[in-house]
Amino acid sequence: MTRKAVVLLSGGLDSSVTAYLAKRDVGVRGELYFLTFDYGQRHIREIDSSVAIASCLTGDWNEVPLSLSMLVKSSLVGSSEIPIEGTTSEIPSTWVPQRNSVFLANAFALAETVGATAVYIGVNFIDYSGYPDCRPEFIQAIEKALNLASKQYVETGRAISLEAPLMRKTKVDIIKLGTELGVPFELTWSCYSGGEKACGKCDSCRIRLEAFAKAGLEDPILYE
Amino acid sequence: MTRKAVVLLSGGLDSSVTAYLAKRDVGVRGELYFLTFDYGQRHIREIDSSVAIASCLTGDWNEVPLSLSMLVKSSLVGSSEIPIEGTTSEIPSTWVPQRNSVFLANAFALAETVGATAVYIGVNFIDYSGYPDCRPEFIQAIEKALNLASKQYVETGRAISLEAPLMRKTKVDIIKLGTELGVPFELTWSCYSGGEKACGKCDSCRIRLEAFAKAGLEDPILYE
Repeated sequence: MTRKAVVLLSGGLDSSVTAYLAKRDVGVRGELYFLTFDYGQRHIREIDSSVAIASCLTGDWNEVPLSLSMLVKSSLVGSSEIPIEGTTSEIPSTWVPQRNSVFLANAFALAETVGATAVYIGVNFIDYSGYPDCRPEFIQAIEKALNLASKQYVETGRAISLEAPLMRKTKVDIIKLGTELGVPFELTWSCYSGGEKACGKCDSCRIRLEAFAKAGLEDPILYE
Repeated sequence: MTRKAVVLLSGGLDSSVTAYLAKRDVGVRGELYFLTFDYGQRHIREIDSSVAIASCLTGDWNEVPLSLSMLVKSSLVGSSEIPIEGTTSEIPSTWVPQRNSVFLANAFALAETVGATAVYIGVNFIDYSGYPDCRPEFIQAIEKALNLASKQYVETGRAISLEAPLMRKTKVDIIKLGTELGVPFELTWSCYSGGEKACGKCDSCRIRLEAFAKAGLEDPILYE
């Protein structure tokens, strides 16, 4: 039987490494369904990166517009400044409430429709911005809830598994793993700002640059 | 403190009764935030009903477009026929995968943004179409998962409660309760088909008509 998986692919570093892991898991005959969301994020540039990564892996690429920005306040979808002060113990202003919940509910809907057995998400709990929806407790709870809403699970007992293979890895380990898997890092995009080149200053850029430095590798994307 | 609640309001009978219950719960000084989704449903007519019910209660009405129909196959959002054979033990073709999950993730995002303490949903487990996402197991699990993704819950321990006050009521009881609360049933819409008048034949119409008859009341809406 052809193995099928749905992959949440933002075009960032973590989701790109996750996509390559999913490809390895489903095998050469497996089928991947990529899901990318346009939720009014400033860094709409990441959608180009998502297409580029998906093209390297072949698969069915889907872009889904979301209206979440109508309902929430966040510097990631609004006009206020992206913070550059570095990560703190507080949840930063780039937090978009329930973003991963909305992404995952859509991913499970697609998985049920195409008959996929797994959904992959590139969340990471170690070198991260402190978003509550990147924690293992949440991933376990939403996997359970979405399966309880699944026709397939209710009728056959076969659950769709939610895979978060990077959850407990450091960013350095993720970069090393991506290098092994041949992930074209030059095609990925992590910066929260919307410029031509990455800003190098926002949380996302800082975490990325620090990790490449620690891994002893050069980040191949351009910075301002 | 002003009590605030988010209400999922489709404009159908159950969600309208739920909205009136939410109004009673938050009190005259309380604030309601109504959330209605345009997800490509055939019965887009229900959105007019949602506006009409919301106007009776006053509150903040929000319509959110969703792209769920891009990802799923369902007779409710597609061109295939709506079944008129009556409810069976199988999940019918009108099933839209993860619809309530997507609705609730958006509702919790809005609740966190406006500082609401509860989200109301009119799901019902007794006289229903067999959709998995109307069952108590699912409602409990998604309440837990969405709170684990909530900044408010993580930072303060205050959970947003998910209220499903009709869960264990029969449709007859729901109609009697709505009558007590003064719900203007003539403004509600339940039919799955998209006509000017309700078809009287689809699952949703049949369940509704049968319940009004059992309650000894006349359904005030027009049927073909």
